[in-house]
Amino acid sequence: METRDLTLLTDLYELTMMQGYYIEDRQELAVFDVFYRTNPSGSSFSIAAGLEQVVDYINNLHFSEKDLTYLSGLNIFKESFIDYLRNFKFTGDIYSVPEGTVIFPNEPILKVIAPIIEAQLVETAILNIINHQSLIATKSARIKWAAGNDLVLEFGLRRAQGPDAGVYGARAAIIGGCYATSNVLAGQMFSVPVSGTHAHSWVMSFGDEYTAFKKYAEAFPDAALLLVDTYDTLKSGVPNAIKVFKEMFDAGINPKLYGIRLDSGDLAYLSKKARKMLDAAGFQTAVISASSDLDEYLIQNLKSQGAEITVWGVGTNLITSKDCPAFGGVYKLSAIQNSDGELEPKIKISDNLEKVTNPGNKKIFRVYDKLTGKIKADLITLDHETFSEDKSLLLFDPTATWKKMKLHPGTFTLRELLIPIFKSGNCIYNFPEAMDIKKYCELEMESLWPENRRLINPQNVYVDLSKELFDLKDKLLNTLDVD
Amino acid sequence: METRDLTLLTDLYELTMMQGYYIEDRQELAVFDVFYRTNPSGSSFSIAAGLEQVVDYINNLHFSEKDLTYLSGLNIFKESFIDYLRNFKFTGDIYSVPEGTVIFPNEPILKVIAPIIEAQLVETAILNIINHQSLIATKSARIKWAAGNDLVLEFGLRRAQGPDAGVYGARAAIIGGCYATSNVLAGQMFSVPVSGTHAHSWVMSFGDEYTAFKKYAEAFPDAALLLVDTYDTLKSGVPNAIKVFKEMFDAGINPKLYGIRLDSGDLAYLSKKARKMLDAAGFQTAVISASSDLDEYLIQNLKSQGAEITVWGVGTNLITSKDCPAFGGVYKLSAIQNSDGELEPKIKISDNLEKVTNPGNKKIFRVYDKLTGKIKADLITLDHETFSEDKSLLLFDPTATWKKMKLHPGTFTLRELLIPIFKSGNCIYNFPEAMDIKKYCELEMESLWPENRRLINPQNVYVDLSKELFDLKDKLLNTLDVD
Repeated sequence: METRDLTLLTDLYELTMMQGYYIEDRQELAVFDVFYRTNPSGSSFSIAAGLEQVVDYINNLHFSEKDLTYLSGLNIFKESFIDYLRNFKFTGDIYSVPEGTVIFPNEPILKVIAPIIEAQLVETAILNIINHQSLIATKSARIKWAAGNDLVLEFGLRRAQGPDAGVYGARAAIIGGCYATSNVLAGQMFSVPVSGTHAHSWVMSFGDEYTAFKKYAEAFPDAALLLVDTYDTLKSGVPNAIKVFKEMFDAGINPKLYGIRLDSGDLAYLSKKARKMLDAAGFQTAVISASSDLDEYLIQNLKSQGAEITVWGVGTNLITSKDCPAFGGVYKLSAIQNSDGELEPKIKISDNLEKVTNPGNKKIFRVYDKLTGKIKADLITLDHETFSEDKSLLLFDPTATWKKMKLHPGTFTLRELLIPIFKSGNCIYNFPEAMDIKKYCELEMESLWPENRRLINPQNVYVDLSKELFDLKDKLLNTLDVD
Repeated sequence: METRDLTLLTDLYELTMMQGYYIEDRQELAVFDVFYRTNPSGSSFSIAAGLEQVVDYINNLHFSEKDLTYLSGLNIFKESFIDYLRNFKFTGDIYSVPEGTVIFPNEPILKVIAPIIEAQLVETAILNIINHQSLIATKSARIKWAAGNDLVLEFGLRRAQGPDAGVYGARAAIIGGCYATSNVLAGQMFSVPVSGTHAHSWVMSFGDEYTAFKKYAEAFPDAALLLVDTYDTLKSGVPNAIKVFKEMFDAGINPKLYGIRLDSGDLAYLSKKARKMLDAAGFQTAVISASSDLDEYLIQNLKSQGAEITVWGVGTNLITSKDCPAFGGVYKLSAIQNSDGELEPKIKISDNLEKVTNPGNKKIFRVYDKLTGKIKADLITLDHETFSEDKSLLLFDPTATWKKMKLHPGTFTLRELLIPIFKSGNCIYNFPEAMDIKKYCELEMESLWPENRRLINPQNVYVDLSKELFDLKDKLLNTLDVD
């Protein structure tokens, strides 16, 4: 994978704050949480993605002389601070949920514990990377869920928001459930399957459609998927494709994969008609794939109308998460070391109750129903708290505390979600391959109840606070000055 | 600027089609047009952007041994084709409108004339780059128009769809009208102004808000813009800011720029109250800036309500073009060389009339009203056609041909929009700096009538076809086989 210098991929205010901390000689540790408040696209869950690129970023973090010259030229930084940057190295700890994990609002999905000047710098790039890939992985999981056992192909590169959005978006789409991508660079970088056949221009560049199909099938006898809508899908495209398939089989070529792609018109109607025509000609094994402004809703609708499509190429709506193109991950201070060396919890208040942060150095326990393996709830706790599967567990809703649920020993299992990624600036995590993350994500999706996976108005999963964290938050809120 | 190898940033089908053309020994020239059918966000126009990155891509186009090994490993390409790729070089011509140009639907904004095998390869990356940057430049132009003489700052990096979306999005945002970006890497790469002060975490990391403001103003006496909403904007934030400003002025520091930033709550109400408090304390020169889910509509609304804000920081809604996150540029074959060496026009038909392409090798004339310098119409013509300002010009609507407009000599001026960028594979265009493109774009925006710039339901600009092009299209449509 290419190594890119993204050190200056940061908001200027991270650097101005750093200079402020530098001048004040602030060396204390700070804890910052990455969390988000709302799932995209009306989902009840999201899929975490991007951690590997965050690690690449942290590992490559250094200010080159070119960077320092540029920053000096802005005339807002002191020479002593520039010298400090020259030797900058990230020395902190990072914890994160693994990529492909199902996540919920308000949980710390990534946690940075580092001297405040270092922790401040990494905010922007971490959010940029995690927000983007989690957004696309979530959208992909929704689309794959709508497609059921069918294959989903990621076709969005030409409409992605720049090269990275195409490449890392393809990675996230694969993690979330896509079978392959059209993006060759993503295929090369992440060892994921690539897919694609031909465009309308191929057909138009030949004198006629039959010749174009014939030549394509000759060039790719093992993957003769023919685009049949250049002139007229049912009158010209499908008959010409059938003619070419007949000639292939007559010539003794048994293609591994062959069939048609629909790219316009009513996909339900056309696919049913085309299926009948292919079957009548003896090509029951011909695949019908489709593309054309697809998303999870349209795929679900087309399937409910009996569309005879088993491969779905999804472009713009996936690669941009068109109905919700931003994932709202934020990076908030939750604790800071005091003069006694203790991590002192910090809270960010807001007029809006949902925007009040959870204070302190925290972790997450995922509580599973032992019988089914499905998620009962997530429990956010302080870092020093311990819980046991051998003792009963009382959960309560942090906004309606009278809503309680007691879990008895033997009925639930616990899993800690945050795992150490960096210790004292060194990466200690062995990264799985994208295809392994994809498999893990499939299992994660299975840990949701069907009610949580519904596309529209799904049931939310409970995210509760431990009693100790709840009391701490309550105490901090009640000791604020009232003026 | 960094040089990146984006050769494999392509859909797999471009490569499979290339192998198909290679096997058939197809050497003929093809003409491909980049155009789009609908402006984003309900706009009547778009702003072209991304050309410089397209040129970088074309200039760096080459298949490395690593790329070739990867492609071989896919087991779909012949060794002779891999050998062809080893020596691949783009040898064609490219024409384009300059970056920052106001553009309209159905116009060829970029045109590739090259051997079909070469022209096919570059489709995906050209669309990816142009679609992304044109999208953000257009959104930026709309936001800047809503902000009038106020400054707009691009603050979206953390919500951008990956690093490139942040960096090239910032570039496009500056071209479209933003004054500065928070993105330091974009500042470095494109020599554009960067901007930013501090976050809530700065305030929370100190014992109290006053100390945090004081320390920040000491560190940055020339740009003391204080974020006043960490605790309570009017009860705490603004009074503490005023206290610090007083101390600065008392100490003889006359800051170049000072003021406050609002980041939550009702920005109209808070800004008016804050303005009064600042004025009453003698700080009429203090700037009030704001950020918080802003877009062109909210800025226009807040201004119409008398909000006392003159600097607008816009994040998510700009950097993702949230209400319309994809620009629908397509790349369509419009002509192909026949056995006589002539470029033979090609047309792509569709059930949907608006999706029928304009055939032939084309160019665009922009017709200006001589008196005002505003755009009367754009005229798409065949490449060999000539027009003169000294002869009257008859324009007609290509979908309602009875709608005609005759322009008399002396009342209009003509400008050809497509300029040569590559000739025989060599770049012959001298690129302007981003800040110069921004200035050009301001003039371009002035060439629109106010009715075209309206945010909601604007008047469209006429995009007409020359008589010769119209007749050619008509002839091709009427000679299609009817079966």
